[in-house]
Amino acid sequence: MRTSAGTASTALLTDMYELTMIEAALRSGAATRRSVFEVFTRRMPARRRYGVVAGTARLLRALESFRFTPAEIDYLAQAKVVGDETLDFLREYRFRGSVLGYAEGECFFPGSPIVTVQGTFAEAVVLETLVLSILNHDSAVAAAASRMTTAAHGRPCLEMGARRTHEASAVAAARAAVVGGFAGTSVLEAGRSYGIRTIGTAAHSFTLVHDDEEAAFAAQVASLGPGTTLLVDTYDVERGVERAVAAAREAGGELGAVRLDSGDLVAQAFTVREQLDALGATSTKITVTSDLDEYAIAALNAAPVDSYGVGTKLVTGSGHPTAELVYKLVAREDSRGVMREVAKASTSKESVGGLKMAGRVLDGHAATELVVSCETEAAGRAELDRAGARPLQVELVRDGGQIVDEHVGDGALERAQERHLASRAELPYPAWRLSEGDPAIPTRHVDVFPDDDDPAVTI
Amino acid sequence: MRTSAGTASTALLTDMYELTMIEAALRSGAATRRSVFEVFTRRMPARRRYGVVAGTARLLRALESFRFTPAEIDYLAQAKVVGDETLDFLREYRFRGSVLGYAEGECFFPGSPIVTVQGTFAEAVVLETLVLSILNHDSAVAAAASRMTTAAHGRPCLEMGARRTHEASAVAAARAAVVGGFAGTSVLEAGRSYGIRTIGTAAHSFTLVHDDEEAAFAAQVASLGPGTTLLVDTYDVERGVERAVAAAREAGGELGAVRLDSGDLVAQAFTVREQLDALGATSTKITVTSDLDEYAIAALNAAPVDSYGVGTKLVTGSGHPTAELVYKLVAREDSRGVMREVAKASTSKESVGGLKMAGRVLDGHAATELVVSCETEAAGRAELDRAGARPLQVELVRDGGQIVDEHVGDGALERAQERHLASRAELPYPAWRLSEGDPAIPTRHVDVFPDDDDPAVTI
Repeated sequence: MRTSAGTASTALLTDMYELTMIEAALRSGAATRRSVFEVFTRRMPARRRYGVVAGTARLLRALESFRFTPAEIDYLAQAKVVGDETLDFLREYRFRGSVLGYAEGECFFPGSPIVTVQGTFAEAVVLETLVLSILNHDSAVAAAASRMTTAAHGRPCLEMGARRTHEASAVAAARAAVVGGFAGTSVLEAGRSYGIRTIGTAAHSFTLVHDDEEAAFAAQVASLGPGTTLLVDTYDVERGVERAVAAAREAGGELGAVRLDSGDLVAQAFTVREQLDALGATSTKITVTSDLDEYAIAALNAAPVDSYGVGTKLVTGSGHPTAELVYKLVAREDSRGVMREVAKASTSKESVGGLKMAGRVLDGHAATELVVSCETEAAGRAELDRAGARPLQVELVRDGGQIVDEHVGDGALERAQERHLASRAELPYPAWRLSEGDPAIPTRHVDVFPDDDDPAVTI
Repeated sequence: MRTSAGTASTALLTDMYELTMIEAALRSGAATRRSVFEVFTRRMPARRRYGVVAGTARLLRALESFRFTPAEIDYLAQAKVVGDETLDFLREYRFRGSVLGYAEGECFFPGSPIVTVQGTFAEAVVLETLVLSILNHDSAVAAAASRMTTAAHGRPCLEMGARRTHEASAVAAARAAVVGGFAGTSVLEAGRSYGIRTIGTAAHSFTLVHDDEEAAFAAQVASLGPGTTLLVDTYDVERGVERAVAAAREAGGELGAVRLDSGDLVAQAFTVREQLDALGATSTKITVTSDLDEYAIAALNAAPVDSYGVGTKLVTGSGHPTAELVYKLVAREDSRGVMREVAKASTSKESVGGLKMAGRVLDGHAATELVVSCETEAAGRAELDRAGARPLQVELVRDGGQIVDEHVGDGALERAQERHLASRAELPYPAWRLSEGDPAIPTRHVDVFPDDDDPAVTI
């Protein structure tokens, strides 16, 4: 994001309290304590049987630009957000810790440690807002997309919701939709930024600006060829279909598709299919685009529809615009230099302490999300291995701050989609239900912290 | 937004079909037809008695950056989105029409013409996606903010939802929240970009990284002074309050405030207030921050709470993350050069044709939204004048493309908030209800198009 100050730094996409905490922790000495922060969700939104990790590549890129350049320092000094010692710390800030996480596209469940940030308290706490903004948004859209592509049973779903969300979210939403199985997007910046296939033909205004529908269709076919998609519901659908097929034939071809954007789509799809077939336009497809969500898509599966264009409900997470992920301190060094589990004990917001390693236990299909609280990654991995679980975490940022290219470079988005479809296919049948219900698999917590190392707080 | 191509152009935050429509319209000759596009909503979201116009200043700035620079042209050429003739048109593209609109902060209703774009078909149609993205997002957040500040009855509401929405939306959401009456934001970029007061103290992780709560409170007070806000619910609230007051007094002052972030906030607020008073800390305030929305705020009004920190529900529009605004062609030149009303006739999506001028008819309080379909602005204004209505539209972009500075420059945000509070105060009492119900005032359409000028489509 280019800011008003003209910089491309992501450092101020941050809540003020991250910086005032650093200031106080620099003074108390806690700033340098080794710490483990974890991103997880306490519960799935209603009706969601699984979550979808999305935004990882965007997060890693944003981390590279997380720098307090002179423009950011000047603002913080002038607004008196923090004092000179903290400004000195921020000026030199580079994340030099490590990040583990579920690879992009992987399914997750309540308690899944989808991202684990290890570093000093100060260097890790300051990333909280940015990490959550990106993962909460992108994962919410990807989860909605995944339900829609499940409901579509292989018919292509196309993203066209840019107009119903913030202009920058729209680009991220298109990307997240692809992670969830979508096949294309209407928004050009997503084509440029992420190489996503862009799609689109014409709006009602295009028909209305011409003297009549015949003139509009002729103009579109002349420009885009008979293989284009004509929007047939500006006036009367039956007359529209007739004119659309005729316009394509006059240009020497068969019409590619008609688009329906209003009315009872199920009934119309049958009528229009019959009409197209009667006209001999058996190869002409039908695409529908009016206020679709996973339920409407499921209802349309019985109808002769060839593809779905989804807008509002997709980019707003189909009722759940945020994934409810939180970023919590789960372990930190004590005054003797020993790593200790920590967890907040307040009512209704319990969390489980400790560094965690996670694996999926398979038994024909996925059966359990196994989450191991452990002192070291190696100890956790050994436990997963013992249980025969598929390890879920990969290295996203190497210790020292170097980003692992595989998760951001060419092909990362395609791999994330493939990974999602494979991870989803591994889930038991209830995962694909759209109705109320529990997460598709249960999460089981195991603690292999050494006995003599009681957690700082037990819940 | 800085794009992957490194430009600051907003031109590709656009659905592909806007460009393919231009291509077809350049060929058919319709591209140069004078056209009127209107932004309006067909209905209010459930329970919303009024909408709030927000995003106007952001839209005008985005319009200034809507340029197809060589980076955008190269992408479009390489991706074969449009052909050479269209690329030539886009390369030279500048919006040279005019934009009328409700001033930022104004309340609106179904059918209110909140933005009217006049220009050639090609120059106006291409702005559809960008205009809607900005206004739909910002107006949705401002409407939620307005309901929350109404429910808070003068107690300050503070925005802290950055972590629950896309990182760039977060900055826009903070701004929109201020339009709706909020007093500050947690997100630093909103402080820098829009001069909004930033707020924030510490998270649970800050308490947990220290050896105990005493050490954490002492560190925060040492750094931020006794006037700071201490988060007292990491362990036990009663002990937390005791330690918080003691920490401030040890530093020679009275504690500024305590923050409650979990549990039954109403009950806790009473208990904590009693405890603070018993400790003599009568000036210490209570701020609450856990999953608040307008209903929770209304419920907390009976409790001794001093301010509200609102996150998720604010930035996600409290159930309605988009304002459902649409951008429709309502009039255009015909082949004889005469302006004609147009409107789509398809099922369930009727709209009213014609350029529209709007005013609010006042009768002690606001009584009617009067919307006049007219051939010229002057004819519409005359009708509003005749009805004694307060005119609602102002010039945002002068004919020729020059932006009116008043709506983007210094103080524009403060003026938008003042305008909103005044516009809201003008509404009748039902506007402030949180329950189901009709829009606060009805919209009345009047047509003063000359008789001999039948609309192209009548609905």
